[in-house]
Amino acid sequence: MNASTKAYEELVTRLKRTALLGSCSAVLEWDEQTYLPREGAEHRANQLALLAGMVHEQATNPEIGNLLVELEANTSLGEASPEMANIREARHEYDRATKLPRRLVEELSRVATLSQHAWVQARKNNQFQDFLPWLEQMIDLKREQASAIGYQGNHAYDALLDEYEPGATSEMIEQAFIPLRNELVSLVSAIKNSGVTPDISLLTRKYPVEKQREFSISAAEAIGFDFAAGRLDIAAHPFCSGFGPGDCRLTTRYDEHHFPGAFFGTLHEAGHGIYEQGLCKEHFGTAMGSSTSLGIHESQSRMWENLVGRSRAFWDHFYQPAQKLFPEALASVNQEDFYRAINDVRPTFIRVEADEVTYNLHIMLRFELEKSLISGDLKPADLETAWNEKFVEYFGIAPETSANGCLQDVHWSAGLIGYFPTYALGNMYAAQFFNAAEKELGDISKLITNGDFAPLKEWLNQNIHRRGKLYRANRLVEVVTGEALSHGPLIDQLQNKYHELYNL
Amino acid sequence: MNASTKAYEELVTRLKRTALLGSCSAVLEWDEQTYLPREGAEHRANQLALLAGMVHEQATNPEIGNLLVELEANTSLGEASPEMANIREARHEYDRATKLPRRLVEELSRVATLSQHAWVQARKNNQFQDFLPWLEQMIDLKREQASAIGYQGNHAYDALLDEYEPGATSEMIEQAFIPLRNELVSLVSAIKNSGVTPDISLLTRKYPVEKQREFSISAAEAIGFDFAAGRLDIAAHPFCSGFGPGDCRLTTRYDEHHFPGAFFGTLHEAGHGIYEQGLCKEHFGTAMGSSTSLGIHESQSRMWENLVGRSRAFWDHFYQPAQKLFPEALASVNQEDFYRAINDVRPTFIRVEADEVTYNLHIMLRFELEKSLISGDLKPADLETAWNEKFVEYFGIAPETSANGCLQDVHWSAGLIGYFPTYALGNMYAAQFFNAAEKELGDISKLITNGDFAPLKEWLNQNIHRRGKLYRANRLVEVVTGEALSHGPLIDQLQNKYHELYNL
Repeated sequence: MNASTKAYEELVTRLKRTALLGSCSAVLEWDEQTYLPREGAEHRANQLALLAGMVHEQATNPEIGNLLVELEANTSLGEASPEMANIREARHEYDRATKLPRRLVEELSRVATLSQHAWVQARKNNQFQDFLPWLEQMIDLKREQASAIGYQGNHAYDALLDEYEPGATSEMIEQAFIPLRNELVSLVSAIKNSGVTPDISLLTRKYPVEKQREFSISAAEAIGFDFAAGRLDIAAHPFCSGFGPGDCRLTTRYDEHHFPGAFFGTLHEAGHGIYEQGLCKEHFGTAMGSSTSLGIHESQSRMWENLVGRSRAFWDHFYQPAQKLFPEALASVNQEDFYRAINDVRPTFIRVEADEVTYNLHIMLRFELEKSLISGDLKPADLETAWNEKFVEYFGIAPETSANGCLQDVHWSAGLIGYFPTYALGNMYAAQFFNAAEKELGDISKLITNGDFAPLKEWLNQNIHRRGKLYRANRLVEVVTGEALSHGPLIDQLQNKYHELYNL
Repeated sequence: MNASTKAYEELVTRLKRTALLGSCSAVLEWDEQTYLPREGAEHRANQLALLAGMVHEQATNPEIGNLLVELEANTSLGEASPEMANIREARHEYDRATKLPRRLVEELSRVATLSQHAWVQARKNNQFQDFLPWLEQMIDLKREQASAIGYQGNHAYDALLDEYEPGATSEMIEQAFIPLRNELVSLVSAIKNSGVTPDISLLTRKYPVEKQREFSISAAEAIGFDFAAGRLDIAAHPFCSGFGPGDCRLTTRYDEHHFPGAFFGTLHEAGHGIYEQGLCKEHFGTAMGSSTSLGIHESQSRMWENLVGRSRAFWDHFYQPAQKLFPEALASVNQEDFYRAINDVRPTFIRVEADEVTYNLHIMLRFELEKSLISGDLKPADLETAWNEKFVEYFGIAPETSANGCLQDVHWSAGLIGYFPTYALGNMYAAQFFNAAEKELGDISKLITNGDFAPLKEWLNQNIHRRGKLYRANRLVEVVTGEALSHGPLIDQLQNKYHELYNL
């Protein structure tokens, strides 16, 4: 064994140990969202702050820096080598981590936990003012974080974005978002003027919660989520958390009188879960065993939720079971009307319930607002007003309550700033990946009609999941599809689908 | 601030930090027993091993030893001072932790894991011989552990017992157990010959699980368990785990055709939970914020389960609600027959299903056998024969299978030797505490009949819970009741209750 090999093995041991400790935090965070009793919030905040501090201490151990210097001097491997990817990403994370003082890391963790509890209460009471002091504290901390990390160019925001979408910049995102927004605004307008209005009331009939759970689980299982290595629980704000090999947790929320929420929510989270379950177990804790970026992660969830779950083919397979489970709601509804209802496009207040056309406008609104909060152009105290004004501009309607407006998402209370744009990136990547998969697999809708989801899942396993962080997101999309990030495939898919649905 | 004050504060900071990290393990252990998907077992084991190692590292940091030396030289406070108790118990735990070589700690952990796995299989196959090699290995390791820790007198067993019941000795326990055993054997024999046989079939009618859950929660809440600071979930082996201030988790298991299991199990765990919730939050992580011993802990669970939950007064209050919730099972059953059924006494093989009279004999049998295993007087190879002989002697019946005999409990496979006696100590302490409470509160059964559980709970809060580890168990019972540990009050209560029930 030469010195570099030894240094590499030591680096990997350290990375895995830190990831293992981090995965303990993930369990506590999941429990916080699912089962934590109210009075336990403060103790949980203390637990998470302690673990965050310890993870930070391990991640910034100067020995990692020494190992990286040694490895960088002696390693000459190509871009596509697992070792090189592990070293490259270890350097990226080490540099980010060492720039943050431990005090700031612990403070961010502590404030995030308490702030989320304040947000839950404020949203419940429709009181933006109750959340404002926490938002102010959080924005201050995130600005401090961005400044500690540093960034090229003028956008402090880029330092935060980089955490979720390594290598991405505001500029790159704007380049994709602006043409997409123009196309979407005209598509939304055409749909609005089409005169076609699907009957969506059938989706708010009575869908018993236990049956929704059963149906959601059967669909998640069918598309390839492994429940021997995962679970589905209830959380106010649905998410997916992969704790590590063999343990991935999905959450959803049920409304007896709203079918799409839990069902498509579960498909969405199962898409994330299939990515997590598809990572190489033996690489756990290193870049090669991690997802590339949140944008790529979201491409997986949105593909299963929308490109698969909201397709005619999917309901060719699942509509009969749905009618059997929900006879009161669906016995007299024909499949085509159901299909049109779940693909209804209209401006609404809640992002997570938005259709796939308007969804991206929700993201752009948040991207612009959070960028202004970080630059200082927008004061937290003015957020609600700014939100409501922009909402009218984009959607033509104004939220009547804070809960339906700027208090709807958990992200800002949790300090997840720079996270939102990854949702829209995910939609664009999903469309690009789906086209590439069809080139190889042929007409995917035929497979879906037969309930044969394995070929698509295995294509994703092979082309995306098992690659871990071998490539950064922007390079991965090139390697897999032969093209750079583009809004084209997404807008093409949306136009093809909705021109037919709305007689455009 | 003088030097001692500074040293004391630093000690407390270190203890709290270690306890906080330990409480993260508690969350992961709870999740392992309640919600962990099958495939996640290995990753969970890795997470727990990492945390255990980190906790051990913090607990044995030599700086704690230095602080203790300094504090012991400069502190002269009375027995009842919180500072002295914290220092005394920190010394006790530090000495125990540092006396164990890391190799032994790791070996014990490894063998416990493998041995439990072997035990599950051996119990399933009713093959004591398959478990024997593991038992031999475990007994060797526990003897090595006892010798590393050291003990006064002749009983290596005391070094193990001390982990669960600090300060207790075999001699002290025998002094209470021998007369208790004699009284119990004659009481069991009298009951057997009484000719009275309650109809216990009414307890195995249909009790829908959801209703059992509802009823168990309402009773746990009524006696004082705070569900804003705790939960009740399902686990194969019920337990209570206090994670820290504001977060205490109870578990139970339901059998649709066995009412007492989940109901009295929940009352039992809620009794533990009320103790955990009654600890002083500000002292979390130090002796003053910890339970005194497993014996005292068990006194709380057994008091609520048996002295309260199996009393006539309790069912004066709860029988009507029970009949409403379980009309199919109880509509035609009168309260007195129900009361007699839940207090049925008869020799059975399984400890966890035993009535409150025979229960203590199960414990004594295990105490005597495990003591002999550790002293070397009993060879592991002879355990099953010794068990079965003693069983006939105590219960008049012989187990026909290993699963119903010496393979029934997890404790020995898990290395929990010295743990069993705390169950019987708990029953004796409970009776003593209950008498002391009645001296102050008057006839408690009158309060219970009215559903007024608060006075007893508050008495326990004040006299036991809020005192933390201010006193060791044997001193606490003297301070609270004015008397030393004694079998008298327990045997008096049992005789009063069962002489009436069985016309003795």
